[in-house]
Amino acid sequence: MPLILGPSDVKKATKMRQMIDVIENGIREQAAGNVSMPPRQNLATSNGFFRVMPAVMRAGGKMGIKIFNGSVEHGVRYIILIYDEKGGELLCMMDAAYLTGARTGATTGIATRHQARKNAKTVGIIGSGLEARTNFAAVCSVREIESARVFSPTPANRERFAQEMGNQLDIPVHPSETPQAAVANSDIVVVATNTTGHSDTIAYYGSWMSKGQHINSIGATGGHLREIDPEAFFRADRILMDTIGGVKEESGDSFAAIHAGAWDDRKIIELPQVLGGLSARKTDEQITLFKSVGSAVQDVMAGFAVYEQAQAQGLGLQINDFLEHKIF
Amino acid sequence: MPLILGPSDVKKATKMRQMIDVIENGIREQAAGNVSMPPRQNLATSNGFFRVMPAVMRAGGKMGIKIFNGSVEHGVRYIILIYDEKGGELLCMMDAAYLTGARTGATTGIATRHQARKNAKTVGIIGSGLEARTNFAAVCSVREIESARVFSPTPANRERFAQEMGNQLDIPVHPSETPQAAVANSDIVVVATNTTGHSDTIAYYGSWMSKGQHINSIGATGGHLREIDPEAFFRADRILMDTIGGVKEESGDSFAAIHAGAWDDRKIIELPQVLGGLSARKTDEQITLFKSVGSAVQDVMAGFAVYEQAQAQGLGLQINDFLEHKIF
Repeated sequence: MPLILGPSDVKKATKMRQMIDVIENGIREQAAGNVSMPPRQNLATSNGFFRVMPAVMRAGGKMGIKIFNGSVEHGVRYIILIYDEKGGELLCMMDAAYLTGARTGATTGIATRHQARKNAKTVGIIGSGLEARTNFAAVCSVREIESARVFSPTPANRERFAQEMGNQLDIPVHPSETPQAAVANSDIVVVATNTTGHSDTIAYYGSWMSKGQHINSIGATGGHLREIDPEAFFRADRILMDTIGGVKEESGDSFAAIHAGAWDDRKIIELPQVLGGLSARKTDEQITLFKSVGSAVQDVMAGFAVYEQAQAQGLGLQINDFLEHKIF
Repeated sequence: MPLILGPSDVKKATKMRQMIDVIENGIREQAAGNVSMPPRQNLATSNGFFRVMPAVMRAGGKMGIKIFNGSVEHGVRYIILIYDEKGGELLCMMDAAYLTGARTGATTGIATRHQARKNAKTVGIIGSGLEARTNFAAVCSVREIESARVFSPTPANRERFAQEMGNQLDIPVHPSETPQAAVANSDIVVVATNTTGHSDTIAYYGSWMSKGQHINSIGATGGHLREIDPEAFFRADRILMDTIGGVKEESGDSFAAIHAGAWDDRKIIELPQVLGGLSARKTDEQITLFKSVGSAVQDVMAGFAVYEQAQAQGLGLQINDFLEHKIF
């Protein structure tokens, strides 16, 4: 009897702080060696891709899969199925377009919780789309943020972001006319851009970094995409990644950093290591960087977070007479 | 707006002859090099498995995925999702427990159509479960079968099979007291057993083969399972497999044949090769064997066959407001 959650249900059932905690539990399981997560499968279609990302979290009794497909003409569609790992029941199928943005934000929230300075109070944001919003909201749910500035190339977009997110989070948010102005001396930076097709695709330069700053960069998830420059990899004292393999093999920013000689394995650590006990920042003066490309554990755990909320709120459509057991 | 099909919908929407033709089209695409199908992903759960099998058929504009999970305590659950490969729309989610049995039968139908003697008239069946039924029905839809015999260790099971399948297909079906009696001199043999836990797991011996016989063996899909003996591999003149890699790496029958020195690459061919033009039988006297373990192309194409019928019959539940596009 799975529950079906459409786009509006998923939005209503997304609670950022709870999602951060639920995903963090999944990544802790990963650190403890209780997770099965193969590399994502990426199949070519006539005009795009069909991708499959399953994960099993044995200790928590959770498993599931994200399936997404896309093309330039038709956009991307995301779906997440979650299962009771012990009993085998399909619990929920949900639309995961919004959820993918939310879990990216939530994962930034985990990184920020463990890597930003405890007394961080200001945020600089580059980008004004869904990911910029969810990432900013996540940062505000793990630190006592007092004010923020936002840059986006189109004035109307940065103004709308400032007004809407300011209202939503009850924090003053100011639009900035340049990206430098948005991030200068901010305690925390969020870089969340979709730089496909721009002539200059670097949204944040390492030369803008300031002492003690923590930077989250969640764009450039494809090899042809760029968002931060090699200098950012070079100047950061400690670089945290959601999955080192994923960031290294999938992000154009990594390719450029490797090419420029700015990729230094000695200062790179992975989110499960930090949740397992490794420190992600050693002093308040260090500059720290978080890079992510996403993982199936994040997706499936985010699905469970939404499912829990949806049940509490009575959302969605319950399907009866579905999924026969075939007993051995 | 995907369509949701439960177990009873899928049964009503399964038309064996149509399913054979639809799956055959998918395998022809494979032969022509238009299919993406990675090896299946098999994730360990606390008490069983979680498996993922996607396939993209670019020429026909079809794609989808089978997801199934199981444990000894809770049985197996199967689901298939199918998509419009060009536009990217999720078309249908369906319960695939019955469908997995039906597609295994349909694939046997394809093999039998291309490998059994044209004038085959009699069938011997070993097994009386879902797969024995779907395989027998498939054989009867590609050859003019005049009579059949069935063996299953429990007399009541073979009698019920004989009566029910005789009525369903309008062909005389007789229960046999031994497996030898069921298959002796049958033009076509169906071996469809679930031999887990039996002390003697061989259901069909190569010494029972007769001139011109075509044998379909669809059990022993796991490394710990057995169904036919190495002598069957040795005596068969031509061995057809749905996927050579799958049968070789997954079936306990293959492991035993390799161990006994009865695996001969020179006489083994693959279903896509036959649909591409290779002959699967050279003379009416040859003994031919078909071994299958299943593939994502079969599953996804079977899903499309059911979807087509379900739409024609107005079956299932249409879900609105589901799967937002995220446009680039």
